[in-house]
Amino acid sequence: MEIKGFLYAAVEAGIRASGRLDVGLIFCDKESFAAVVFKTNKVKAAPVLLDMDRIQKKQVRAILVNSGIANACTGEQGFETAKKSAAFIADSLGISEDMVLVSSTGVIGDQLEAAKFEKVANSLTTNLSSTGYDDVAKAIMTTDTVPKTAAYTSNIDGHEVKLFGMAKGSGMIMPNMATMLSFVMTDANISDSVLQPILQSSVEKSFNRITVDGDTSTNDMVLIMANGIAGNPIIDEASIERLTAFQEALDKLLMDLAIQIVKDGEGATKIVTIRVCGARNNLEAEHAARTIANSNLVKTAFFGEDANWGRIIAAVGRSEAVFVPEKVDILFNDIMMVQNGLGLGPDVEKSASTILQQESFVVKIDLKEGNGVCDIYTCDFSLDYVKINADYRS
Amino acid sequence: MEIKGFLYAAVEAGIRASGRLDVGLIFCDKESFAAVVFKTNKVKAAPVLLDMDRIQKKQVRAILVNSGIANACTGEQGFETAKKSAAFIADSLGISEDMVLVSSTGVIGDQLEAAKFEKVANSLTTNLSSTGYDDVAKAIMTTDTVPKTAAYTSNIDGHEVKLFGMAKGSGMIMPNMATMLSFVMTDANISDSVLQPILQSSVEKSFNRITVDGDTSTNDMVLIMANGIAGNPIIDEASIERLTAFQEALDKLLMDLAIQIVKDGEGATKIVTIRVCGARNNLEAEHAARTIANSNLVKTAFFGEDANWGRIIAAVGRSEAVFVPEKVDILFNDIMMVQNGLGLGPDVEKSASTILQQESFVVKIDLKEGNGVCDIYTCDFSLDYVKINADYRS
Repeated sequence: MEIKGFLYAAVEAGIRASGRLDVGLIFCDKESFAAVVFKTNKVKAAPVLLDMDRIQKKQVRAILVNSGIANACTGEQGFETAKKSAAFIADSLGISEDMVLVSSTGVIGDQLEAAKFEKVANSLTTNLSSTGYDDVAKAIMTTDTVPKTAAYTSNIDGHEVKLFGMAKGSGMIMPNMATMLSFVMTDANISDSVLQPILQSSVEKSFNRITVDGDTSTNDMVLIMANGIAGNPIIDEASIERLTAFQEALDKLLMDLAIQIVKDGEGATKIVTIRVCGARNNLEAEHAARTIANSNLVKTAFFGEDANWGRIIAAVGRSEAVFVPEKVDILFNDIMMVQNGLGLGPDVEKSASTILQQESFVVKIDLKEGNGVCDIYTCDFSLDYVKINADYRS
Repeated sequence: MEIKGFLYAAVEAGIRASGRLDVGLIFCDKESFAAVVFKTNKVKAAPVLLDMDRIQKKQVRAILVNSGIANACTGEQGFETAKKSAAFIADSLGISEDMVLVSSTGVIGDQLEAAKFEKVANSLTTNLSSTGYDDVAKAIMTTDTVPKTAAYTSNIDGHEVKLFGMAKGSGMIMPNMATMLSFVMTDANISDSVLQPILQSSVEKSFNRITVDGDTSTNDMVLIMANGIAGNPIIDEASIERLTAFQEALDKLLMDLAIQIVKDGEGATKIVTIRVCGARNNLEAEHAARTIANSNLVKTAFFGEDANWGRIIAAVGRSEAVFVPEKVDILFNDIMMVQNGLGLGPDVEKSASTILQQESFVVKIDLKEGNGVCDIYTCDFSLDYVKINADYRS
């Protein structure tokens, strides 16, 4: 989706051996407010360290992103490279360098060459266009098999506000957004004071609710830039309606992108919603759901289309959720397979197996202890996951 | 190893479709002290519930074990089946039924048929022999590819004390001994008051330090039976030397069995020791080591023989260990690959890759924060793991 004020370009800078698009630039041609949610891994890549500092001012004009090398575990040299590459772009755009963020994804431990960014800086800035977003979405891919974008609109007091986002990620995806990058552009007129909490809330409900392999990375971030061009009455603490309308649109956008990531999970053939309800509280529901969603035994059974509920209940049993096994119900979509801790027999299991042949389904576990609920989105675990990760240096 | 007083038998009871040995019996022909360590999964199989009660008396004469069906999530009926099957054996042996423990491993949720045990009870007890242990070790296998036994002796004040053990387990192996059964027989003369803490301590250092897939099960237990026939001066709190000598032998025995389990990990081609040192304390070292040892990305890289230290440091980064990435060293055997958080280049990485081609090696991560250390034993993650677990109902 084109949004007035946002321009995009991508080039081949030769960072990836394959000769494909590997550097992208997103530019906002007027000042914009920005907010970022970063990853929680204690090992932080150089671009993350740089951006964490620059985002303090909430003023961002451009984001320079590359794939191929993560610029993580690269020390002082890596940090200097991140700064220099931002400076080349700032020069070429004629803006202050502290308004340029950088973002990298790829192999940990290798050094990026600043010269490669210097070489492509002018080509990037002269090729900027309002429709170049698909190229940038391609340039940030690593083991992703498809680029991921989504667009939504929101009606704010009669004004149409646009939101467009892109994301990358398919392995190392866990709670807390591992090896996940997402950039969201909006023309909303929004107060800088509410942008961060709104983004945080949406991320919590979307990217932090998906898992592919339980691993988390050193580089991920979700960035939103808002340039105010829509001219809507300002979205701020004064109007709950406007806040809610914008939050809902952003929720939809990020959930859309998050589900695209799970679908494109390394080697994934199915997307599964793990829904734990009846936990004593939401935290215990979340822990149980995550334990199931990250269990290799559960995920390989999904791949094998085997309604193996024993592995599911065993996973709940080693989670932190407090429950009585003899009370648990398990449903595949709306077919009850287990009632009060007991399997309902081979016929029911056969029906459930047909559900597992679908590309997407819900596994619901009712602990009957309270009102705690949590949905976690996961994928199955296939032979291709191992092939991809044994062969590919990521 | 034959140990006076211990007899073994195994039969085909038709619990497994494949027509192989699936029920085993271990019998001690005089009274013996026993201790058991159980699993920590909140979902407890029927035999576990029965044994937890019976072990209170510390007097065990026999253990009846089957593979094929776990008798877990089987409710009151499953519990009655466990009790009945023990009673058939007790009748046939002419001993009190509360001195018979039962143990099951296999598919969760299916009901065992008590009649199958009734049918084989006499065949089991009449075929008991002092050399039948290999058959029992075979009868308890599920996805194991080889039976696992080990034997050690200990010199207690000039008396030779024998220890013989068997184990099963290859998937669902995590901290806390999932889907893991082990039975240890010894002729040691030992006080019942020290047997439990000694077993607990050995289990902590061995079976609780291995991981195959991060999953834990509903059924596992480690049982030791001591019949006193060696006639050694009693091992009790009064003699630290005797306690230490016996503990050392048991440590060796359980570690031997534990390493056999990792080697036989589903689809495993390599065994890897993850050694975290320099953590602020042992707990943080353990958490870091477990996080690495359970990381699918790390384990698939081992399978691909790729010295991908970025995945290792990223795993430490999401663990609970407090550390500064810029201080971390990583060694593969004695080759330093990462010093102070920075890779030492492609030449070093090439040497490290040759280490990864070995069947067994050590990955050492030095956090340089304190004196906390922990070793965790893991295996690589191969295509066969997915094949086994997508196809096999376990």
